Amino acid sequence: MEWGEPVRQLHVTPGMSVGELVREMGRAGAYNAGALHRAASIYEQMLRDQEATRFFGLAGAMVPAGMGGIVSDLIDQGYIDVLVSTGANCVHDVIEALGCHHYHGNASGSDVELRKLAINRIYDVYLPDAAFSRFEEFVQGTLEDLLRESPFTIAGLLRSLGERLPSGILATAAKRKVPVFSPAFQDSMLGLQYWLFSQNHRVTLDATGDMKDLLDRCFSAKRAGALFVGGGVPKNFILQGMLLTPRGFDYAIQLTGDRPDLGGLSGATLDEARSWGKLSEEAVSVTVYGDATITLPLLVAAVLERMNT
Amino acid sequence: MEWGEPVRQLHVTPGMSVGELVREMGRAGAYNAGALHRAASIYEQMLRDQEATRFFGLAGAMVPAGMGGIVSDLIDQGYIDVLVSTGANCVHDVIEALGCHHYHGNASGSDVELRKLAINRIYDVYLPDAAFSRFEEFVQGTLEDLLRESPFTIAGLLRSLGERLPSGILATAAKRKVPVFSPAFQDSMLGLQYWLFSQNHRVTLDATGDMKDLLDRCFSAKRAGALFVGGGVPKNFILQGMLLTPRGFDYAIQLTGDRPDLGGLSGATLDEARSWGKLSEEAVSVTVYGDATITLPLLVAAVLERMNT
Amino acid sequence: MEWGEPVRQLHVTPGMSVGELVREMGRAGAYNAGALHRAASIYEQMLRDQEATRFFGLAGAMVPAGMGGIVSDLIDQGYIDVLVSTGANCVHDVIEALGCHHYHGNASGSDVELRKLAINRIYDVYLPDAAFSRFEEFVQGTLEDLLRESPFTIAGLLRSLGERLPSGILATAAKRKVPVFSPAFQDSMLGLQYWLFSQNHRVTLDATGDMKDLLDRCFSAKRAGALFVGGGVPKNFILQGMLLTPRGFDYAIQLTGDRPDLGGLSGATLDEARSWGKLSEEAVSVTVYGDATITLPLLVAAVLERMNT
Amino acid sequence: MEWGEPVRQLHVTPGMSVGELVREMGRAGAYNAGALHRAASIYEQMLRDQEATRFFGLAGAMVPAGMGGIVSDLIDQGYIDVLVSTGANCVHDVIEALGCHHYHGNASGSDVELRKLAINRIYDVYLPDAAFSRFEEFVQGTLEDLLRESPFTIAGLLRSLGERLPSGILATAAKRKVPVFSPAFQDSMLGLQYWLFSQNHRVTLDATGDMKDLLDRCFSAKRAGALFVGGGVPKNFILQGMLLTPRGFDYAIQLTGDRPDLGGLSGATLDEARSWGKLSEEAVSVTVYGDATITLPLLVAAVLERMNT
Repeated sequence: MEWGEPVRQLHVTPGMSVGELVREMGRAGAYNAGALHRAASIYEQMLRDQEATRFFGLAGAMVPAGMGGIVSDLIDQGYIDVLVSTGANCVHDVIEALGCHHYHGNASGSDVELRKLAINRIYDVYLPDAAFSRFEEFVQGTLEDLLRESPFTIAGLLRSLGERLPSGILATAAKRKVPVFSPAFQDSMLGLQYWLFSQNHRVTLDATGDMKDLLDRCFSAKRAGALFVGGGVPKNFILQGMLLTPRGFDYAIQLTGDRPDLGGLSGATLDEARSWGKLSEEAVSVTVYGDATITLPLLVAAVLERMNT
Repeated sequence: MEWGEPVRQLHVTPGMSVGELVREMGRAGAYNAGALHRAASIYEQMLRDQEATRFFGLAGAMVPAGMGGIVSDLIDQGYIDVLVSTGANCVHDVIEALGCHHYHGNASGSDVELRKLAINRIYDVYLPDAAFSRFEEFVQGTLEDLLRESPFTIAGLLRSLGERLPSGILATAAKRKVPVFSPAFQDSMLGLQYWLFSQNHRVTLDATGDMKDLLDRCFSAKRAGALFVGGGVPKNFILQGMLLTPRGFDYAIQLTGDRPDLGGLSGATLDEARSWGKLSEEAVSVTVYGDATITLPLLVAAVLERMNT
Repeated sequence: MEWGEPVRQLHVTPGMSVGELVREMGRAGAYNAGALHRAASIYEQMLRDQEATRFFGLAGAMVPAGMGGIVSDLIDQGYIDVLVSTGANCVHDVIEALGCHHYHGNASGSDVELRKLAINRIYDVYLPDAAFSRFEEFVQGTLEDLLRESPFTIAGLLRSLGERLPSGILATAAKRKVPVFSPAFQDSMLGLQYWLFSQNHRVTLDATGDMKDLLDRCFSAKRAGALFVGGGVPKNFILQGMLLTPRGFDYAIQLTGDRPDLGGLSGATLDEARSWGKLSEEAVSVTVYGDATITLPLLVAAVLERMNT
Repeated sequence: MEWGEPVRQLHVTPGMSVGELVREMGRAGAYNAGALHRAASIYEQMLRDQEATRFFGLAGAMVPAGMGGIVSDLIDQGYIDVLVSTGANCVHDVIEALGCHHYHGNASGSDVELRKLAINRIYDVYLPDAAFSRFEEFVQGTLEDLLRESPFTIAGLLRSLGERLPSGILATAAKRKVPVFSPAFQDSMLGLQYWLFSQNHRVTLDATGDMKDLLDRCFSAKRAGALFVGGGVPKNFILQGMLLTPRGFDYAIQLTGDRPDLGGLSGATLDEARSWGKLSEEAVSVTVYGDATITLPLLVAAVLERMNT
């Protein structure tokens, strides 16, 4: 029977740092606060492990909520080796990088009225239609440039987009030569733009063209860690990559708002992944339940503080 | 201010039919029971509308939980015109159709022990590794057969698999000529099998090869309805299909365990989809929160009872 | 390693009974549908056990949602021996029994506008202020009648109210001599009405006056079972009752929308209750996650069908 | 149509303070991170308002998770005028104050084994039975001391317990003369201990004996604010207190893991409370969904930083 330290009643002090707060959460040690502290310890260990390849899974509408900044900073600091993202987060990253904005909105406004104002809603975030026109222009222009590079791969397209953007996830990943995989690319405005382009141009996008690159990285990793923001395709794709190798992930952290009892992968525990061999038998892992717009900044701020002291 | 009937206290009687129970839920009319009754009314309307194209989005690990039977029956009865599924549900459908089984298991067993027994866990469902060997053999054999049909599309591959299977979702869809789209195909064991095959064979899988067929169906639909089981890629892909057309869905039902406040598409309200024009301004729509292994059978049994009386 | 039957793909047929549907859910056997089927088996066992005392915990705004009818029917059929309820459910039961109504409303209307119309909202249920005037009149009148019975106990007051009402939970419980405990009574409109009365009358309400009666029933039970709708005070009070006895519950079913990882009792697993001795070591128990307005009618209809065939 | 600032991509820096992080969350401004920032602004406003009476509702197993420290500090700093708590949080506060401990445990251990070790589990917190013996001794001793003060009120008993303890919520509240109400007192080990005592002593505990004191504070408040940690009886009791007055709360913040669609009060929006007049028409209010072991420390640390600069 595993049995640890006494729970310490948590005290906060004015001006305390995020790292100090997370340490206090660890001394209290219960529920998701305790899990968050364990996540910080695992993430620190994973970032300090020079021989570990670090995967990052990005699902959920995180860029519209301003979480893209954390991701691009982590890439820039060398803390992400492989990024797997939904198509939508790439779309919204391009939009932000082009200087268009998402706006603070209201979750309970009239959607019919918003429609008339040409504003698209993502919970309490508003995105004017105009951003998509700017996006279309940029993507179509880039595809024209790339015409002779066909057959494309999805990661190749995303890198090319990143090379033409001044900032953001794709730009930083291109600069740092970090691959961005997005296996459900066609299920996004990027996929739609590509398809429109393909109607008038002789191009091919190979659906599994990135698989080899991903698997090479899985096979060559001495050790491997993953941070999953949300579940969805990014979580599954990262875990699946390890399935073909003789070993599983050594470190795994999951920030999710889903629950295991519904059976879906997004809410599945990381222990479940051990039965599949996606995590190694001895892997250290933890799930923090909650909104990643809160848990991700907390986690990263606490770990960066540890890495820098 | 919308203001309706009095809440009627619900009474159940031994032997009552599912349709009778759902009618009682409608008379009570509150919370998710009320929503389920509204879902039944919308679904009945959508199935009776001869001019409506009916889309079905299948996300979550539904086939391992036995929900595939309902989907294949709905296809067989002509109630699904377009199916969009995660890759995983197709994989598990093939496994079941090949005579392999998922098993009643335990959500709190030791995953390390399961790993040693070569059993993969999906919450409280067990799937022995052996099923994947049988699956691999079947898929590789089918791909050999199809070699000269390359370049493939995902829907084409799924139809070919279905043509070679005796039962299940893919088999019934192939028989009924209902297309099955699975845009994140590569994020599944099917994608992995295809990729393995492609290492030794000259084949190409066009990532957006199915887009035209989907969009044609969106454009040609006089009216359109959608039933979403879970969210994920299937929900987004179906909604996205309607984005390019001048009109949105007229009917929409969502069975989900996610919540809107996390911002992700899987938990987003269907009202939000109106701001994007994915639902028409006058569309009838409802979300039922809960586990689809309960709400889907309830909904379909109640609606089939209405359709057959 | 516990390992059971194959998952059977679920099929529904028009006109099938609720019991047949729940049997199909049991053959599929996964996630919350599987749990619901186990709940039906445990509940059947518990109702057939002539030597078991059956406790029922009623939390959440269930009467406003029309779930009171099921509870009063179960009492009338002799299937509930002890009811523990929130004060609010008793209040709304009185309101319904007095012929006032709750109404089908809208979860997204303007609450400021509702306030101006003197309508109180409970998610998508509306309750006009007028009902509370009728309620006040009835409760004050009853208290006048009872004046010389002081010191009161909460269960005594609830029984007296029930004796004066034509129908509903309190009326049926009074008729069937089933005690209704409501330990947080003062946290309700009933408590407020009592307190108003006590300002002008010499009365006392003994906070723990019902404890002996509850504990006697716990001690005298040969076996004991509990069905918990929601958590809250009713769940805790029922479980606490068993703490003083040398034994725990033998059967326990929980229908809840809460989750364990937040640490609160309402979402706590029933296994956790074993560590406290509230459930016996060998107790059969199950939690069904979901909205009880769906799971409770399903469960009870299925079990009554079994009991009557 | 309310339409605000652009979403700013969030950046974290090593060593940043909690207040700085929450400000960044506000600039991102979406989902629950945005809500947390709004909560901080409302809470700051409420604490700075010298004419506001500040209520605090404490539900969920917060003291076993180490959140009691924050509550007692807030009382000590004069930031809580009225505390309403579940009985259980008072029980665990006494246990901690007596020098007994809760321990870091494991959510997936064997509860049958824990039972044999005389350890009680609260999700991933362990509490040895021995603590309850110490607790019993202390409570019985205190009741002996108080014998001649009967009839008791619940708040009176809690104050007397606090006066005899060296630290914790009850001790600080007693020292600072902040009343602690716990209307469901009998639904806790404290209630059980009181009842045991009452079997051999002539004492009475008046169930509604604290109502006048609470209502006086509601009536005399020039303005009123409430911070709700969880829902349950504390939330309802605080809101109910305001019902009899001509006005509602002016400030309200809710930290909850529940959802509105289940209809229960714990997950109900604060807007719903406006229809009842529990919040004033112009009240500022916000709900932050998530585990309060994370959101409460974040909120309080950020607001104390603002109050001290």
